[in-house]
Amino acid sequence: MAELRVVGVEGLPEVEEGMSVGAEIAARAELRDGDVVVVSQKIVSKAEGRVRQLSSAIPGGEARRLAAVLGKDPALVELILEESREVLRAERGVLIVETRHGFVCANAGIDSSNLPEDGAVCLLPEDPDASARRIRAEIRAAVGVSAAVIVADSFGRAWRLGQSEVAIGCAGTAPLDDWRGRADANGRELEATAIATADELAAAADLVRDKASRVPAVVIRGLAHQVSADDGPGAAALRRPKAEDLFR
Amino acid sequence: MAELRVVGVEGLPEVEEGMSVGAEIAARAELRDGDVVVVSQKIVSKAEGRVRQLSSAIPGGEARRLAAVLGKDPALVELILEESREVLRAERGVLIVETRHGFVCANAGIDSSNLPEDGAVCLLPEDPDASARRIRAEIRAAVGVSAAVIVADSFGRAWRLGQSEVAIGCAGTAPLDDWRGRADANGRELEATAIATADELAAAADLVRDKASRVPAVVIRGLAHQVSADDGPGAAALRRPKAEDLFR
Repeated sequence: MAELRVVGVEGLPEVEEGMSVGAEIAARAELRDGDVVVVSQKIVSKAEGRVRQLSSAIPGGEARRLAAVLGKDPALVELILEESREVLRAERGVLIVETRHGFVCANAGIDSSNLPEDGAVCLLPEDPDASARRIRAEIRAAVGVSAAVIVADSFGRAWRLGQSEVAIGCAGTAPLDDWRGRADANGRELEATAIATADELAAAADLVRDKASRVPAVVIRGLAHQVSADDGPGAAALRRPKAEDLFR
Repeated sequence: MAELRVVGVEGLPEVEEGMSVGAEIAARAELRDGDVVVVSQKIVSKAEGRVRQLSSAIPGGEARRLAAVLGKDPALVELILEESREVLRAERGVLIVETRHGFVCANAGIDSSNLPEDGAVCLLPEDPDASARRIRAEIRAAVGVSAAVIVADSFGRAWRLGQSEVAIGCAGTAPLDDWRGRADANGRELEATAIATADELAAAADLVRDKASRVPAVVIRGLAHQVSADDGPGAAALRRPKAEDLFR
């Protein structure tokens, strides 16, 4: 019978810049070939030194203007704009942007929760797919296991309340399981059905932790058939091309 | 250690109108108090007689006009419009609507895969939260177990490629886990963080089945603390109020 196990990795230390996230996880989880390791963006960013002091940001004119409209800190808005290539919406206190990676989310994914210092904020990794590939290689180097790695963050959604975890980086698993052109159980062709598997893995992992906990890494076992030897296209393949997007 | 198990329910028969979905699942899964049972919208709709022959739909003027623009079957467009309260987008072959329930999705959730007859399509349940409550009661009646029930369907997303399963109905679990105002691990208040748990459960369940398989029900074990005696507000609570939505 098809079965998955989703298990939190306990006992990870407070992550510092330069730490090998993959080695730390491998030391605390009994990883096996074919496991999927879902890592919270926050610890990846911390390990990569992507923490900024708000006091270090010098708000430009656009940041000051938007901050006034939105009731936000001008220094935070400056950092958000620096991480963004386009502002989609700036109203009702909400700033929705396309990040430099091409993800559409609130505040360019910058937030201040689960950081040790006051006045600090955490940016998304520079290249979350590269982060996933590096953590995958760290795991392989530490314990010789071929696991897939997903870097996950919570994004809000149009039309639905609440945030859900999505993959902003991945390595070793295809982010999209494309069923278009394949047949259903009755032999009829399936309509447009490409499943965002990496996002579903990120969401599943979130169920075993909570936002206040120190469980920033989760192992999903039972999907070895979806773990590949190559790193694959990464979560970048989940970005809907702007020209095909009806909701800009 | 926090751990979830996600297990497909095997051996369900082809669902016919009037069948007790809850009793059929309970007969094939060894359910326990605190399990979450995720049921595919398709079998719920079939049990509720929500299958239509395209030949029974008489396209009105608006359906014929949109069908011509989109290159779709006018009878299908007629059914979509009948199930909708508003058309958000009709371009590039895509019809995004707000359903009569208030969900925003493509084609009002109508599709033709996994149906035995040619020319038939399946509509969403009339009231998916009521469906979830009924299936929950059927399970309780059959085996005396207090489980939560989620009715799940695949929705596309703005800005991201691929579909992900979301909850269109739920009973016995809170659809949103609201952390706003609560503290992070460092005692700092979390920013806007309400987690769409019901959607994450739907996504997790999707990982153990595939679109061609006969595994339309999945049991998630290990979240008994999220299963309540009362049915709760249902997935209707996941609809973002139109007035707060920036992407219409």
